[in-house]
Amino acid sequence: MFELADVSRHTIHRMALYHSVLKIMKENGVSIVVSSDLGRRTGIQPHVVRKDFSCFGEFGTKGVGYQIEYLLRRIEKILGYDTVWNAVLVCHGMPALPSVVYSYWPPAVNILSVIDLSGQNVGLPVDNLDLAVEQCENLVEIINTRNISIGIISTPPSYIQETVNHLIKAGIQGIVNFSAYPVFVPDSVAIIQVNVASLFSQMTFQLKHVPTKVPATERSAAE
Amino acid sequence: MFELADVSRHTIHRMALYHSVLKIMKENGVSIVVSSDLGRRTGIQPHVVRKDFSCFGEFGTKGVGYQIEYLLRRIEKILGYDTVWNAVLVCHGMPALPSVVYSYWPPAVNILSVIDLSGQNVGLPVDNLDLAVEQCENLVEIINTRNISIGIISTPPSYIQETVNHLIKAGIQGIVNFSAYPVFVPDSVAIIQVNVASLFSQMTFQLKHVPTKVPATERSAAE
Repeated sequence: MFELADVSRHTIHRMALYHSVLKIMKENGVSIVVSSDLGRRTGIQPHVVRKDFSCFGEFGTKGVGYQIEYLLRRIEKILGYDTVWNAVLVCHGMPALPSVVYSYWPPAVNILSVIDLSGQNVGLPVDNLDLAVEQCENLVEIINTRNISIGIISTPPSYIQETVNHLIKAGIQGIVNFSAYPVFVPDSVAIIQVNVASLFSQMTFQLKHVPTKVPATERSAAE
Repeated sequence: MFELADVSRHTIHRMALYHSVLKIMKENGVSIVVSSDLGRRTGIQPHVVRKDFSCFGEFGTKGVGYQIEYLLRRIEKILGYDTVWNAVLVCHGMPALPSVVYSYWPPAVNILSVIDLSGQNVGLPVDNLDLAVEQCENLVEIINTRNISIGIISTPPSYIQETVNHLIKAGIQGIVNFSAYPVFVPDSVAIIQVNVASLFSQMTFQLKHVPTKVPATERSAAE
């Protein structure tokens, strides 16, 4: 279908962005889009849009634009959104689902089990999910019988690496680390780090050191 | 103190990572660290650790290592963690704080107000925060009287850009966009996009297309 070596992390990120924007366009009844319009809506240069698409073969007809419905299906196939990936969320204490985040959850990831390492909340229902908290002792069985491929980790730092090792031993294929602490996995396991603290530090660094171009007083005057 | 041009986004990301790891080391009673040890714990090459630090001047004595307490104070000053940055969280509907995420919130960001654009939950208490939901009509006053510099957005796509424009007009200096949709800000405003859907797409793409090095059957056998 395409050469993996041609696909960078940045291309994947932008494909996810095109997908979000195209979905809204489709919902609003738009059926065709040109690269300059998609570029404008995503803040990405039109030639980059075309280059991203070209990694994966032909997507549209020159001069006509792209059929949004077809484009969405192709992107979903590329990003793996056409498959449901089952996940287990491992917490310590009462699992609190990242609701703000959850509202923008990718369509393809489905949390099938929530585990509390402390064991204190086993049996309690989980907010926003039709699930009850389960215990760690059943982890291997849960992963194998429910076809779970992704482990989402949200535990205090002292438990993180141990939890990851446990998940990998149980046969997990991918780890999502929601903590600010690095975890280590073998090459055979996929990993993404959702380090919110580090993302926020980009903001506080900028606010502290980069002078804003419009002083606060001018901004107030412009109201 | 240092040349902004020498500091990349990647350096800031790694500084935040060093900070998380050093804090744990300090809590565990460690007082001195060498770059090779910090590198091992963060998964970063020791020469990169030293290069990152050198962007900001002298941090330690050659051959002796770094004093962890001093290092933490310096990094906090650099990342803006030595200041409290007040923030407003803007939602549509009942604000659900990203609890998993919040447990790894950067130390310097303090949510002082939660606004529900729908107006339906005004006055209700917000989980995990000692705050009641406020209404959008008071946004300008809230931002100005409470010295709020960061706006955190978690609204459906159709409200996002409008909300951002409103916040900027009210004098906000930085926007954190928790949605999968791009927003546009003038150069004078800092922005970070916490696009969880896009991060997850890196995972589903990989699971779908990159063959895992250890087949599932072998993994089961290794248990």
